Amino acid sequence: MSEFIKSKAAIAWGPNQPLSVEEVDVMMPKKGEVMVKITATGVCHTDAFTLSGQDPEGIFPAILGHEGAGVVYAVGEGVTSVEVGDHVIPLYTAECGVCKMCTSGKTNLCSAVRETQGKGLMPDGTTRFFKDGQPIYHYMGTSTFSEYTVLPEISLAKVNKEASLEEICLLGCGVTTGMGAVTNTAKVKPGDTVAIFGLGGIGLSAIIGAKMAGAGRIIGVDINTTKFDLATKLGATDLINPKDFDKPIQEVIVEMTDGGVDYSFECIGNVDVMRSALECCHKGWGESVIIGVAGAGQEISTRPFQLVTGRVWRGSAFGGVKGRSQLPEIVERYMAGEFALSDFITHTMSLEDINEAFDLMHEGKSIRTVIHY
Amino acid sequence: MSEFIKSKAAIAWGPNQPLSVEEVDVMMPKKGEVMVKITATGVCHTDAFTLSGQDPEGIFPAILGHEGAGVVYAVGEGVTSVEVGDHVIPLYTAECGVCKMCTSGKTNLCSAVRETQGKGLMPDGTTRFFKDGQPIYHYMGTSTFSEYTVLPEISLAKVNKEASLEEICLLGCGVTTGMGAVTNTAKVKPGDTVAIFGLGGIGLSAIIGAKMAGAGRIIGVDINTTKFDLATKLGATDLINPKDFDKPIQEVIVEMTDGGVDYSFECIGNVDVMRSALECCHKGWGESVIIGVAGAGQEISTRPFQLVTGRVWRGSAFGGVKGRSQLPEIVERYMAGEFALSDFITHTMSLEDINEAFDLMHEGKSIRTVIHY
Repeated sequence: MSEFIKSKAAIAWGPNQPLSVEEVDVMMPKKGEVMVKITATGVCHTDAFTLSGQDPEGIFPAILGHEGAGVVYAVGEGVTSVEVGDHVIPLYTAECGVCKMCTSGKTNLCSAVRETQGKGLMPDGTTRFFKDGQPIYHYMGTSTFSEYTVLPEISLAKVNKEASLEEICLLGCGVTTGMGAVTNTAKVKPGDTVAIFGLGGIGLSAIIGAKMAGAGRIIGVDINTTKFDLATKLGATDLINPKDFDKPIQEVIVEMTDGGVDYSFECIGNVDVMRSALECCHKGWGESVIIGVAGAGQEISTRPFQLVTGRVWRGSAFGGVKGRSQLPEIVERYMAGEFALSDFITHTMSLEDINEAFDLMHEGKSIRTVIHY
Repeated sequence: MSEFIKSKAAIAWGPNQPLSVEEVDVMMPKKGEVMVKITATGVCHTDAFTLSGQDPEGIFPAILGHEGAGVVYAVGEGVTSVEVGDHVIPLYTAECGVCKMCTSGKTNLCSAVRETQGKGLMPDGTTRFFKDGQPIYHYMGTSTFSEYTVLPEISLAKVNKEASLEEICLLGCGVTTGMGAVTNTAKVKPGDTVAIFGLGGIGLSAIIGAKMAGAGRIIGVDINTTKFDLATKLGATDLINPKDFDKPIQEVIVEMTDGGVDYSFECIGNVDVMRSALECCHKGWGESVIIGVAGAGQEISTRPFQLVTGRVWRGSAFGGVKGRSQLPEIVERYMAGEFALSDFITHTMSLEDINEAFDLMHEGKSIRTVIHY
């Protein structure tokens, strides 16, 4: 086997530039690493956020993409949990199973590869991507915008080979994040009232989660009303557009719910909306979960009285889901028909057209565009 | 029985003025109300906060005081849960047992008398205090700075007559608030690491709560080191003064605890300290509880990333304790020797000297001054 293989990839050479689809060299996996042939990847707002230059951790040149699925192409020394031919979902939140975080039983935020991953590097401090000898950085430890990518073994969930890779790639980020925040982080119970702010891929997935949890009332909030039909189809019982009211949307929601919601979810990354989401919660017990990622340096704020009177402010990353131990089960539930992924896929296209996927997202015209290789 | 009785009381005629000890007329209790002869009352920072004029809900003239204990002197029509001679602790958080909040099983924030209480009035919209025919407002529904005061029946916890009223008055606010925030709201578990910001009456009570809960490490934080000896006696294992460090205290605590504490408690009412308390929590699971009351219009803020990475921000009022159903049991635990109250009482004096109690508090020289009639 040669030291590297040629791969098609979309390179982000710098912030605020279109991606450039080129051929790169991908080094074969080292010890504890796996090379995956990506067959499908979603394009997520977080990719766009980093590409915009607003992400303080953004590093260039890099190969973006973090919502993929594929097939194991090669394994490095010592890899035991997957083998060539296995179907996998890359995990931007690894699960080593042995660190303080993994063994705490309280969080999915494994710390094993966090530091190097944040720097765009593999755990050994180097990259596996090169263009004309120049290293290209990894992104979120996944870089699914390359047909061949390399990940640590602990960053792969091995899933049922019968599942459609083109659909389950969405479980690599958006759908798991939204559903998990509702069912895992908030633990919504039957009959609860919930409000979901922002009806993109995450928010719509949160609606699915709320429906699965048996929520009695599911209030969707968005200024883009084109999402309302799909939201209704997925289970939303009320849909409101803040622009239709001349008072803060939290006051509107408090009034329509006799005091506020049991749970709210911020699925946008807007710090003002995060405040609205907290303040629409019921006094005494309402909990608000932040899912969206805010811009660099932005802060949330509220009067502490909101918390002293019983509201709770928390957050959720990847839906609180441990990728290797829990994601395979979520794939099984998808295959059993508990929820559909096809509703989310509004567009599909090849890697060559990936910039169009970003345009559709920016224009609010897509839920998810799936890129296939 | 006459329509009113004469009572000694400390009147707050206006913000930022010394209290004036005078004789007032106290109307006999109406339907559902109880007149209590207060025998002892603590002087709490919240009284001082309102007296300072910074409390946006402060109304004058009023009779302050909310941390008292006494004996039922007369009952109005229909009162069944207490009778003359019963020992009671006035509750600024009522417990009606039938409102949405009380029946939720999720909060102690009864809504029954909240609205009129906030306006300094009894539930029927009038006051029971008069001076030369002029109505004087109630305060927090308790007004324990009057020897005779009137409360709704649902705002009284009936307690064991054997308990020292001069000590258990502290369970009417400070001690219950601090202990309850730890054991009830946060539910600290054996071995947990906690940080407690501010070592006044609330913070020291939080230390007692943490000790009772079996916390493995109890870190007290204050810039007034005169509290450190008592904090150590009560159970603090580490005491730190933010002024001794040239970096933010949250960084100091994160370093000394291998990543942060499991729980933190803000017992001051300072919004900057509230931020430090949140940010010293461990990624993935650390929870910060706001107990202190901030000044009017002040806001807490942080980067949402703090929450998305697993920290939780909540608050606690009166330790999450339901006054009528849970406070009698806390009195029993005090009598059984599970915790001491005498440590908190640094000064005692008569009502005539109450302004001195405020001075001692402002100068940081007292934990609690107990006024007796």
